[in-house]
Amino acid sequence: MDNLLGEFIGTAILITFGCGVVANVSLKGSKGENSGWIVITAAWGFGVIMGAFTSTALGAPQADLNPALTLAKTLNGIYTGTQALATMCVQILGAILGAVIVYIAYLPHWALTENEKTKLGVFATIPAVRNYGYNFACEFIGTFILIFLIFAIFNPNNGSFPSGLGTYIVGILIWAIGLSLGGPTGYAINPARDLGPCIAHALLSISGKGESDWRYAWIPIIAPMLASISAYSIAKILNII
Amino acid sequence: MDNLLGEFIGTAILITFGCGVVANVSLKGSKGENSGWIVITAAWGFGVIMGAFTSTALGAPQADLNPALTLAKTLNGIYTGTQALATMCVQILGAILGAVIVYIAYLPHWALTENEKTKLGVFATIPAVRNYGYNFACEFIGTFILIFLIFAIFNPNNGSFPSGLGTYIVGILIWAIGLSLGGPTGYAINPARDLGPCIAHALLSISGKGESDWRYAWIPIIAPMLASISAYSIAKILNII
Amino acid sequence: MDNLLGEFIGTAILITFGCGVVANVSLKGSKGENSGWIVITAAWGFGVIMGAFTSTALGAPQADLNPALTLAKTLNGIYTGTQALATMCVQILGAILGAVIVYIAYLPHWALTENEKTKLGVFATIPAVRNYGYNFACEFIGTFILIFLIFAIFNPNNGSFPSGLGTYIVGILIWAIGLSLGGPTGYAINPARDLGPCIAHALLSISGKGESDWRYAWIPIIAPMLASISAYSIAKILNII
Amino acid sequence: MDNLLGEFIGTAILITFGCGVVANVSLKGSKGENSGWIVITAAWGFGVIMGAFTSTALGAPQADLNPALTLAKTLNGIYTGTQALATMCVQILGAILGAVIVYIAYLPHWALTENEKTKLGVFATIPAVRNYGYNFACEFIGTFILIFLIFAIFNPNNGSFPSGLGTYIVGILIWAIGLSLGGPTGYAINPARDLGPCIAHALLSISGKGESDWRYAWIPIIAPMLASISAYSIAKILNII
Repeated sequence: MDNLLGEFIGTAILITFGCGVVANVSLKGSKGENSGWIVITAAWGFGVIMGAFTSTALGAPQADLNPALTLAKTLNGIYTGTQALATMCVQILGAILGAVIVYIAYLPHWALTENEKTKLGVFATIPAVRNYGYNFACEFIGTFILIFLIFAIFNPNNGSFPSGLGTYIVGILIWAIGLSLGGPTGYAINPARDLGPCIAHALLSISGKGESDWRYAWIPIIAPMLASISAYSIAKILNII
Repeated sequence: MDNLLGEFIGTAILITFGCGVVANVSLKGSKGENSGWIVITAAWGFGVIMGAFTSTALGAPQADLNPALTLAKTLNGIYTGTQALATMCVQILGAILGAVIVYIAYLPHWALTENEKTKLGVFATIPAVRNYGYNFACEFIGTFILIFLIFAIFNPNNGSFPSGLGTYIVGILIWAIGLSLGGPTGYAINPARDLGPCIAHALLSISGKGESDWRYAWIPIIAPMLASISAYSIAKILNII
Repeated sequence: MDNLLGEFIGTAILITFGCGVVANVSLKGSKGENSGWIVITAAWGFGVIMGAFTSTALGAPQADLNPALTLAKTLNGIYTGTQALATMCVQILGAILGAVIVYIAYLPHWALTENEKTKLGVFATIPAVRNYGYNFACEFIGTFILIFLIFAIFNPNNGSFPSGLGTYIVGILIWAIGLSLGGPTGYAINPARDLGPCIAHALLSISGKGESDWRYAWIPIIAPMLASISAYSIAKILNII
Repeated sequence: MDNLLGEFIGTAILITFGCGVVANVSLKGSKGENSGWIVITAAWGFGVIMGAFTSTALGAPQADLNPALTLAKTLNGIYTGTQALATMCVQILGAILGAVIVYIAYLPHWALTENEKTKLGVFATIPAVRNYGYNFACEFIGTFILIFLIFAIFNPNNGSFPSGLGTYIVGILIWAIGLSLGGPTGYAINPARDLGPCIAHALLSISGKGESDWRYAWIPIIAPMLASISAYSIAKILNII
C-alpha cells in the first residue's frame, strides 16, 4: 500500500510541476509567459526529481511515476502483474490530482487566455505536426531513451551514487530529453503524464475550454508502452540489467 | 543566539540574491534587463542555497530563512514558541537588510525606471491578476509544496545526503516552484520574503517610488502560514516526519 | 569488444541529444524553435553525461565518445594503436546512428524547413564566418581546453569524486565550452560529432536537403586531433597526467 | 612555484570562459549573439569551476583566481605578503593570457562588430550608468558577498563536501552573483578579471578597437580589495573563519 500511496502522490507532484510550468509559459498574463523552452524543460526535469523524493519518502522507492517505466520493471521482475496494474492506476490518478492543482493555482488565467488549444496544451501534449506515424515514432524514441538510460545510469558499472545524486541525474535526463527530443510532440514519454491531465481537462469546468483531443491520446499511451518493452529487451540483450 | 544571528544574516543573503535578481531583470538600463523568468527563478533558488550555507556556518543549522518553515518545524517540536517567534522576527529583519543592500547595489537605476509598480515589484510580490481568493490559493499551494517537499527530501528513506547536496537540492526545489507555480503571484511562499522588503520599500527614499501596496501584503503572510500548518499535518499523517 | 559496443552506443546517445537539440531549435514548427543558445549548449552537455553513463554501463569505462579524447589517451598509454583505431571507428558509426535517430524523431519538420543550410546545420557544424585559418584556430582552442580540462579534473589533486559526480562535471565542462567558445564555429571539438552526422546527411533522403559541405569537414577532424596531441603534451609537461 | 603556475593557468582558464562568453553574446555574427544574461552568468560560474579544478590539478589547491580572495586569505594567514603579491601578479598575467585566447578564438568577429564599446566590453567591465560612487558600492557589495560566502560555505558547520562538490557550489555562487548583482556594473568582483583583459585590449591589435577606459579601471580593483578586507573582518568577528 505504501508503494501505491507513494506513486500516487509522487506523480501528483511531478504533474504539478510539469503542467504548472506549461501553464506559466503559455497562459495569458502569467509572469512566466513566453519564457521559452529552457523554462519548460527545466521544470519537467526538476518535477521528476521532486516527485521521486516524495515517492521514496512515502515508502515507494521505485519512484517510477510513469507506467512505461513500471512496465519495464515488471518485465524485469520487480513487480507482479497485479502490482504493476495497481501502480499504473495510481500513477494516472496522481496525474489527475496534479492537473487539478495546476488548474487551481492558475485560476485567474484560464478566462484571460482565449485560445482553446493553448488551454488544452497545459494538460495534454499536442504534436507540432499531426501525423500519427511520425508522432508515434518520436514518442517511441523519447521513451526508449528514457527507459534505456535509467537502466544504464543505475547499472553497477556506474558505481553506487551517493544519496540524492542518482535522483538528480535522472532529472537531468528528463531535462535533456525535453531539450533534444521534445520538439515534435511535446514529449509525453509517460502515459500517465498525458492521460491523467487529459481526464482532468475533460472533467474540470475550465473557462472557455474547447474539446479534448481524444483522437491523439492513444499515441502517448501506446508508443511509450511499446518503447518500454523494446528498451527492456535491448537492455536485457546488452546485459545492462 | 547563534540561531538568531544565522537566520538573520542567512535571510539577508537570500533576499539580496532574490530581490537583486528582480532588480536586474526589471529596472531600466540594468545589464540583465528583460532577461526573463529563467534568470529570476534560478537566482531565487541559488539564493536559498547561499542563505542556507550562511545560516549554518553561523551556527543556525535549521537554516529556515522562512517563517512558514519555522512554523512547521515548531509544530514538529524543533522550536519552542518563544524561539519560533524570535526566529521569525530576525528573518523579517534579515529580509529588510537584504532589501536595503539591493537598494544600494542598484542605486543608479531607481531614477531611470519610471514605472512605480516596477520599482515596488523589486521589493514586494505583486499578483498578475488581483483576486484575493485566487492569489491566496496560489500562495497556499506553492508554500504547501515547499514545506511538504522539504520534509519529504530529508525523510530517512531518501538516505543521508553528502554534505552540501541536500542544500543544493532544496535550491532546485525553490527554482522549480518558481518555474511552475510562480506565474500567478510571483511566489512569495515566505512571509519574510514579502514583508521585509515591503517595509524596506516604505522606509527607503527610493527615487520616484509610489505607494506601498499594504492591502495585498496579508496574503503572502497568511497563506504561507496556513499552508505550513496544512503541510505539517499531512506530512505527519503520512508519516514522512 | 565491450569497449567498442559501449563507445558505439554511448556516442549514438550523445549525438541523439546533441543533433536533436539543434533540430529542435532550428527546424520550422518545432516546439523549441528559436529557443536559443542556452538550450543548445545545455543539451550537448547533458548528452555527454548520458552518453558516458551508457558507455560505462556497457563495459566501456573510458567513455570517450570522441576520437580526439581517445587519441590523447592513446598517447598516454591507455589504448594500443589498434584499439584506438577501432574505438574511433565505432565512435563515428555511433554518431551516424545518433544522427539517423534524430532524422526519424524530427521527420515532419524536414519538409517544413525551407533553408537547406538550416537542415545541414542539424548534422554538421557550420562556421559563422568561413575562414579556414580562423575556424581551425577556434576548433583547436575548444578541443585543447576540453582535453586539458578532462585531464585536470581527474587529476588526483582534485580528489576522488563520488560515483556520478565526475561525469556530471564533465557535462558542465562541455556546456561551458559551448557557452564560451562555441560562437565562431559551433564547437565540433570532436571529429566523430561532425563526420558521423555529415555522412548521415549525405546518405539520408532528407526532404529538400542541399549539398553536404565536405570542403569544411576536414577542420573539425584535423583541428581537434592536433589539439589533442598538444593538450596531451602540455598536460604531460605540467605533470597533471 | 606550483602555486604560481596553478593560479596562472587557472585564471587563464577562468578568463577564457568568462570573456569568451561575453564575446559570444555580444560580437556580431557569433552563434550565441544576443543569447542573454543566463548565458553570460552561467559561463562565468562554470569558468570558475573549471579554473579551480585546473589550479588544484597543477598543485595550487587554494585556487583563488582572484586577488581579492588572495588578499582575504592573506589576512587570514594562508599566504605571506610576498606569496600573496606573487600570486596576485600571476593571476593578472593569467587573465591577460585568457583574454588573448578569446581574442584568437573570435578572430573573424572583431572586424564584423562595429561598436567600439561592444569590443571593449568583451575585455573590461563597463558600468550601465557611470557614477564612480554608485559603481564602487555595487562592486563592493558583490565582492563582499563573494568572499564572505566562500568563507561561509567552507565553514566546518557545513560539513566536509565530497570531492568536487565544493568547487561546483562555488561556481553556483558566482553564477548567482552575476544573476542578482551583475546588473549595474557587469560584476568584475575580481581585480584580475578586469585589469588583465584591459591590458590585453590595450596591447592587442583588435580590428577597429577604440580607446581603453582606464579612468574606470580603478573601481574593479579598489572596490574588491576593500570588500575583501571588510568581508574578512566581518567573517572573523562572526567566527566563521
